[in-house]
Amino acid sequence: MSKVVTMGEIMLRLSTPGYERFVQAESFDAIYGGGEANVAVSLANYGHESYFVTKLPKHEIGQSAVNELRRYGVNTDYIVRGGERVGIYFSETGASMRPSKVIYDRSNSSIAEADVEEFDFDKIFKDAKWFHISGITPAISKKGAELTKAAMISAKKNGVTVSIDLNYRKKLWTPEEAQAVMKDLMQYVDVCIGNEEDASLCLGFTPKGLDVTSGKLDVSGYEQIFKEMKEEFGFKVVASTLRESYSASDNGWSACIYDGKEFYHSRKYDVRITDRVGGGDSFASGLITGLLEGKSSKDALEFAVAASALKHTVKGDFNLMSKEEVQTLVDGDASGRVQR
Amino acid sequence: MSKVVTMGEIMLRLSTPGYERFVQAESFDAIYGGGEANVAVSLANYGHESYFVTKLPKHEIGQSAVNELRRYGVNTDYIVRGGERVGIYFSETGASMRPSKVIYDRSNSSIAEADVEEFDFDKIFKDAKWFHISGITPAISKKGAELTKAAMISAKKNGVTVSIDLNYRKKLWTPEEAQAVMKDLMQYVDVCIGNEEDASLCLGFTPKGLDVTSGKLDVSGYEQIFKEMKEEFGFKVVASTLRESYSASDNGWSACIYDGKEFYHSRKYDVRITDRVGGGDSFASGLITGLLEGKSSKDALEFAVAASALKHTVKGDFNLMSKEEVQTLVDGDASGRVQR
Amino acid sequence: MSKVVTMGEIMLRLSTPGYERFVQAESFDAIYGGGEANVAVSLANYGHESYFVTKLPKHEIGQSAVNELRRYGVNTDYIVRGGERVGIYFSETGASMRPSKVIYDRSNSSIAEADVEEFDFDKIFKDAKWFHISGITPAISKKGAELTKAAMISAKKNGVTVSIDLNYRKKLWTPEEAQAVMKDLMQYVDVCIGNEEDASLCLGFTPKGLDVTSGKLDVSGYEQIFKEMKEEFGFKVVASTLRESYSASDNGWSACIYDGKEFYHSRKYDVRITDRVGGGDSFASGLITGLLEGKSSKDALEFAVAASALKHTVKGDFNLMSKEEVQTLVDGDASGRVQR
Amino acid sequence: MSKVVTMGEIMLRLSTPGYERFVQAESFDAIYGGGEANVAVSLANYGHESYFVTKLPKHEIGQSAVNELRRYGVNTDYIVRGGERVGIYFSETGASMRPSKVIYDRSNSSIAEADVEEFDFDKIFKDAKWFHISGITPAISKKGAELTKAAMISAKKNGVTVSIDLNYRKKLWTPEEAQAVMKDLMQYVDVCIGNEEDASLCLGFTPKGLDVTSGKLDVSGYEQIFKEMKEEFGFKVVASTLRESYSASDNGWSACIYDGKEFYHSRKYDVRITDRVGGGDSFASGLITGLLEGKSSKDALEFAVAASALKHTVKGDFNLMSKEEVQTLVDGDASGRVQR
Amino acid sequence: MSKVVTMGEIMLRLSTPGYERFVQAESFDAIYGGGEANVAVSLANYGHESYFVTKLPKHEIGQSAVNELRRYGVNTDYIVRGGERVGIYFSETGASMRPSKVIYDRSNSSIAEADVEEFDFDKIFKDAKWFHISGITPAISKKGAELTKAAMISAKKNGVTVSIDLNYRKKLWTPEEAQAVMKDLMQYVDVCIGNEEDASLCLGFTPKGLDVTSGKLDVSGYEQIFKEMKEEFGFKVVASTLRESYSASDNGWSACIYDGKEFYHSRKYDVRITDRVGGGDSFASGLITGLLEGKSSKDALEFAVAASALKHTVKGDFNLMSKEEVQTLVDGDASGRVQR
Amino acid sequence: MSKVVTMGEIMLRLSTPGYERFVQAESFDAIYGGGEANVAVSLANYGHESYFVTKLPKHEIGQSAVNELRRYGVNTDYIVRGGERVGIYFSETGASMRPSKVIYDRSNSSIAEADVEEFDFDKIFKDAKWFHISGITPAISKKGAELTKAAMISAKKNGVTVSIDLNYRKKLWTPEEAQAVMKDLMQYVDVCIGNEEDASLCLGFTPKGLDVTSGKLDVSGYEQIFKEMKEEFGFKVVASTLRESYSASDNGWSACIYDGKEFYHSRKYDVRITDRVGGGDSFASGLITGLLEGKSSKDALEFAVAASALKHTVKGDFNLMSKEEVQTLVDGDASGRVQR
Repeated sequence: MSKVVTMGEIMLRLSTPGYERFVQAESFDAIYGGGEANVAVSLANYGHESYFVTKLPKHEIGQSAVNELRRYGVNTDYIVRGGERVGIYFSETGASMRPSKVIYDRSNSSIAEADVEEFDFDKIFKDAKWFHISGITPAISKKGAELTKAAMISAKKNGVTVSIDLNYRKKLWTPEEAQAVMKDLMQYVDVCIGNEEDASLCLGFTPKGLDVTSGKLDVSGYEQIFKEMKEEFGFKVVASTLRESYSASDNGWSACIYDGKEFYHSRKYDVRITDRVGGGDSFASGLITGLLEGKSSKDALEFAVAASALKHTVKGDFNLMSKEEVQTLVDGDASGRVQR
Repeated sequence: MSKVVTMGEIMLRLSTPGYERFVQAESFDAIYGGGEANVAVSLANYGHESYFVTKLPKHEIGQSAVNELRRYGVNTDYIVRGGERVGIYFSETGASMRPSKVIYDRSNSSIAEADVEEFDFDKIFKDAKWFHISGITPAISKKGAELTKAAMISAKKNGVTVSIDLNYRKKLWTPEEAQAVMKDLMQYVDVCIGNEEDASLCLGFTPKGLDVTSGKLDVSGYEQIFKEMKEEFGFKVVASTLRESYSASDNGWSACIYDGKEFYHSRKYDVRITDRVGGGDSFASGLITGLLEGKSSKDALEFAVAASALKHTVKGDFNLMSKEEVQTLVDGDASGRVQR
Repeated sequence: MSKVVTMGEIMLRLSTPGYERFVQAESFDAIYGGGEANVAVSLANYGHESYFVTKLPKHEIGQSAVNELRRYGVNTDYIVRGGERVGIYFSETGASMRPSKVIYDRSNSSIAEADVEEFDFDKIFKDAKWFHISGITPAISKKGAELTKAAMISAKKNGVTVSIDLNYRKKLWTPEEAQAVMKDLMQYVDVCIGNEEDASLCLGFTPKGLDVTSGKLDVSGYEQIFKEMKEEFGFKVVASTLRESYSASDNGWSACIYDGKEFYHSRKYDVRITDRVGGGDSFASGLITGLLEGKSSKDALEFAVAASALKHTVKGDFNLMSKEEVQTLVDGDASGRVQR
Repeated sequence: MSKVVTMGEIMLRLSTPGYERFVQAESFDAIYGGGEANVAVSLANYGHESYFVTKLPKHEIGQSAVNELRRYGVNTDYIVRGGERVGIYFSETGASMRPSKVIYDRSNSSIAEADVEEFDFDKIFKDAKWFHISGITPAISKKGAELTKAAMISAKKNGVTVSIDLNYRKKLWTPEEAQAVMKDLMQYVDVCIGNEEDASLCLGFTPKGLDVTSGKLDVSGYEQIFKEMKEEFGFKVVASTLRESYSASDNGWSACIYDGKEFYHSRKYDVRITDRVGGGDSFASGLITGLLEGKSSKDALEFAVAASALKHTVKGDFNLMSKEEVQTLVDGDASGRVQR
Repeated sequence: MSKVVTMGEIMLRLSTPGYERFVQAESFDAIYGGGEANVAVSLANYGHESYFVTKLPKHEIGQSAVNELRRYGVNTDYIVRGGERVGIYFSETGASMRPSKVIYDRSNSSIAEADVEEFDFDKIFKDAKWFHISGITPAISKKGAELTKAAMISAKKNGVTVSIDLNYRKKLWTPEEAQAVMKDLMQYVDVCIGNEEDASLCLGFTPKGLDVTSGKLDVSGYEQIFKEMKEEFGFKVVASTLRESYSASDNGWSACIYDGKEFYHSRKYDVRITDRVGGGDSFASGLITGLLEGKSSKDALEFAVAASALKHTVKGDFNLMSKEEVQTLVDGDASGRVQR
Repeated sequence: MSKVVTMGEIMLRLSTPGYERFVQAESFDAIYGGGEANVAVSLANYGHESYFVTKLPKHEIGQSAVNELRRYGVNTDYIVRGGERVGIYFSETGASMRPSKVIYDRSNSSIAEADVEEFDFDKIFKDAKWFHISGITPAISKKGAELTKAAMISAKKNGVTVSIDLNYRKKLWTPEEAQAVMKDLMQYVDVCIGNEEDASLCLGFTPKGLDVTSGKLDVSGYEQIFKEMKEEFGFKVVASTLRESYSASDNGWSACIYDGKEFYHSRKYDVRITDRVGGGDSFASGLITGLLEGKSSKDALEFAVAASALKHTVKGDFNLMSKEEVQTLVDGDASGRVQR
């Protein structure tokens, strides 16, 4: 049980019920989540002392975000309260050949307008073992980028392992803007997680021979990229999930990792999707847990990919699976038999 | 953006929630829809000036049907108000090998008892480009048949292209009764849509080598039938969807068309079904849109079949897809990746 | 239409909505069911005069269990009222590789603490044709075991055919405890239903060459076991379902039977699962109905396996399918086409 | 515990959720009920052997009506199955000064088209103690009127006490039509229940000094009317509820009775309304129960009015109160304290 | 049936279900509404040709707002599409002494950032009879204020009667800011609606002897204020609702009007509240309808106050009452008796 | 902000939706609560460092109870995990003259079977300022009584103020059993909360001149009782709520207190009830907060009674009101005006 820290935005996701389209919705399910918050919940779930750092308004919508984190065991003591709004996004769940759809309304959220001075990073990272952040946080605003850098510097100063999930979002910035910020941050990163698109857009790498839309992925391309990334940025570990989108309902799901010695491609799961939001985050938290516990890269990867395969069956952003449940799948029981 | 007219019955569909059976239902989802109404909504959705013609009672259930049409952009100015009731049907959604089930309670609806004199067809068809109707409307009552004929005559007189979806319903009439009415109407029809059963039952044609229940369809049989149909009835275009019912949950879905020159069989989609009601109607509206916009038969067909494949993923009768969303699928992205 | 009797526990199943995990649930669907109660409802549904015997508290939760049985046509005249509680279990529905999960809270239920003297078995079995019970009832308590034995003795005395579904539950007793009770009961049993695990744990038999978790089943193993079982216990008929758990969402489903003359393996169905609870019970009631109506073992088995395949598509414990609906599937229409 | 028989129509009530207006409803609560069916359920609830006689279609909507009756203990053995439809009505619940609203769609229901020959009334009334019907059943159709008369004749022949709730419905017939049928039926009636309007419209009596809309009722007027009614028609007992409509949310509720000796006005309750449908029916069943058990007119009336006051707090048509719960209110505890 | 125009913001109201507090909500009801939009719907409902003018984003949340207006008959042809977001507010419904609560998140909405040039006011007001706006629209932004003024000028130029509902919102501006804008606009106003607070804060008037919190209002104070307001600003009519907040559940509701000749105080209703949002707007639309139809000030006021009393019983912002329903209440039937 | 400790049982309350009766319920709302847990949540809400002590099973239902406490800010570090079950109770909400009803199923819960040795009370009470418990905890089992005594002794040893809410539950023990346990515990109690019944049943006191059922309470009786109680047991403060049950929908609500110097009767609120469960607990937490903050007895009482009046408007057991919201009501604004 280690102290782990994540920082980022937790948003209010307004999700249409079932498979309803936006124009049909008479109500929205209210789900709180966000890249790093999802990682924080999953880490708490695995038994870590998990702290989430953000800024949220004082009103009840901000409080509800805090409450949802507390409910699942995340420590919210470092959350700053103030500012104007909780970032919002609307989502509808796709099915078959109809893709899921997202409408963002996240500008001017409290965390996007937060100042570095509002956070006591040295206190936050004291005795911490791991710091995780995604490429979304530096993308939301200039202040978000400053915050990310300040946190990373403090983390490294405090001897904390730093991981990042690149997570390029084209609605937040252009590749040029992303690279201007992200490349500089890489010097503080130990573990880099990124799928084929993210690596290309955030860091200027181009995976070869990959046709993403067609659902076909060439794993060997990853090995090459990962080696080059490690060389240039000094990462200790590079990993990525590999999603094969057969349809909005069914995906192939695996991952690969390179730790400087070995490149490894995990077992592949065919997942029937309940909710794919947070799939990548559950991979990150699984990987962090595996590495924190001293698992080999291969074992950590298998834990991470099983965890995130399971996430796709859980409604909401959070991966509400226990370590034992994930391990059962790693150990080979994917039969889905009733646990009585 | 053309003025298009559809005429028929809009019913109140009382649908059990989720996959509940009728005897389990403590509530019904209230969905308004019907063959031609579904076409009208989809046409409005694609940007046409879409008019739906029917008769509905003055009470609030009738008003709710009007409201649902208006909500999705259909012009309801030509709807006559009066009569006793809105036709009702109960539906439960099947799954796997359990078929969906429908119980009709549609007798004596306002439109089934409407007189030709209540509608000013010359006004209705003035400046219109297209008139679409299904074989259900003439089947609901003798007055429905009279109404259909009167509308078709006026449409032709006003230079409007006429399409029909044969849509045989065995609970409404016998093949003999159907043929007595339908054969006569064919003289006014430019575009005829019918699957293998409908062509046989409404017009006396027998598709060869087709075993419908087994889920296997012989496409070459269609080419022959379509040519014969065109010859005998003088249709300009004949088209049909081809459903392969693997189960109540998964269907194969394609379509074919014959325009006097070429016979074309579309790409086939494997659809995981959310709600298959209105699947055929979404094909009709897609085809009409394609032809109205001057697309080739082949391109119109691909648009129509992609539109209707997507419809199967949308709850309710209406195909709430935009032209852009359909086109994206036509252009080849069936991966269902999240649109962020 | 025969008088048939079932006896056992009917529980309150508190089921999380949709695919929600326990820790997400803000409400529970309230479903009443239990092995023998599920059989009773299905038998009533097929037109039999179906009596369910149990003990339930006098309060409204007990009354609700009675009401749910009455609603579906089960005669509740022999139900004794009294005791403290209705047994409860919590369930969450799995998806893909995430298994369904059950938490029991059934100790000290009214039926588990009922005395033999509270039931007038000679009256209960008068004019009855069939008595069915599962291996759960003797497992719930010492009194449950006494009750089971007393009922079986009375049933045989009254010339009633007796069937048992072995249904081993590891949370209720150890294999040793089970065998101590169950072996003795077999002398009264005419028809024994048990899957590979149950036969092994309740009666000490070991199926050979079966790897349950892997989803692969060797049918020939069953033939051998069934013959040995018949020999040792004098069963007239031995049958079992064969579940292949591809995942929590999709299963292969078939069954086999041995009647002393022939061993028969049914058609196999691939089922997309809505709710798999009660799957085995719907097999039992299908088999009983087939045998009661004088069908051949093979035909009875095909009816039973079709019935239970359909059950997997119905929410709740009860198999709310009519005889006609089952027969349609037996007759080969698994296309799931809409029944209009 | 006596055999009691009721006959009439059980309808599907499609009720908007909460206080939604018709045009807002995206779903309807499905409630089965009807004047005499409501009485039947309440009588079963009080421990009587309660039979409900009607005709319902064979399809699942008809079956659902049967099931709902069985669920609450009503014997459905005398229900004939066949015909086309279950009568429907839509309802929205009023609040404050907004009245509740009802839209009927009940023409051509199975019971409205049933023939006298379909019912074996001598079997139905064998050993029965009471027969209750309302003035709605003869109003739904000519066949309904014939059925009512045939049932009453058979009931009297079999020595069964007959009660009627006059229940004039202006959408079903005119006062002239009502009186033509109803006056003739009165010769078979022992106990007549009718409020001020019904007595006037069905039987041609005019209550004096009553201003219904204003919410003020002159009780002394009832004494006079009741005496005259008894004299002319030979009723043994005449009773009526007295509703004071303060608003759609709050009503005053009392009743009066005349048994040839004494006129009695009950205690008055101020009720906050959850669902007022079935309020009158719960009065009838309370009165019948009181009289069947040999209570004095006064005590029977107090039981009936307490029962029906409680009904106003229960959602749906049925009065799901036990005899003990009603008696507690009769005995004076209207404090609404929690029963732990 | 006159052409009437309203202009303002339509927001997405995210409302907790029932009486849930914000921190309890797992979902939000999605309701579209806003001061002038509510007036527009009600005017359409009364049969007017009602146009609503605003700007909404092109995405599906914007489209849903358009659809909801169309559903209830509002003409949306003048709505401009573009900009970033639909204004949002969260609401929870109070009960008893717990007040309803609102959290605004409306900054930077499309209409708040719209330019005057985007609207063709001369086309909009052509043939129009009435223009209504509230004091919220000029308050949302500087551009909102410019838009309001431009619209008013064009309305007057086109001979359109102009009404305003002052509606001071302290979260949008200070009294100083409000007065700087609002006083200037009054020159274009014919009919001014404002309660005691609004008159004071927007226009610098102070009602005498009014203690708002205590729930006691001195009507005579209004007469004085109205006369002074008319004199200074040249209004033709001044009116206001008078709310007495007994609690969050029950309010007294009346209104008063001054037309230069007579001051009139309406009948007072005691309303049990279902949803009080939009209460003032339903008063405005009632008053406009009354005046447009040539009713006397007194009759128009009684219509308006009855309409808005009824609104309090309807969920959502819109007053979904027909003219006939309102008139029935005006005519004196507040008994809430079922309309069958 | 003080460390406060509460100890007791947190149960799963299965509550029928809306005003449904048990026999109507198709689902139950899942609410976690219990006397002391409710106090703990409210204290956390007021800003205290609130610890709740109990024992809960390791399974997910136990975890859900933990999560719900964490969600609202309660520290769960002292909760022991183990044992068999979470206590359950079923509840239906009354209306008008129909009382709310509760069915308990709480035997053998984890906390009822917990041993004193499982809790490190000296650690628990270190630095704590207040310990609160109710009379329910010693009533649930012999072990519960031992636990209560051990906790009280440790609390006193650590200088912690001890309060008890007597809360007699007749389904848990007889007055004789209660008095045998409770009288002994009183030596450790500083602040005693009890209504008229509890004082009588737990401690053998008889309030004079109180007719509870009639809804009339004689306040002067309390002054006498409180003085005698203080004298005999050495309480520092005695307080009680005074509920006047007009009906299940409306109650009068006030309280009185005696601190050895003055007897004070608070302001009385008339509350329209949303959910009255936890009303008494919200009084206790309000009183504790007032006294902890050094308020006078009178001011603490007014805060407590306002807090608990507000609780009646909140669904669920917990009083989700902030200190500011309570204070606003204390300061006199009960108008329920919208807070915008």
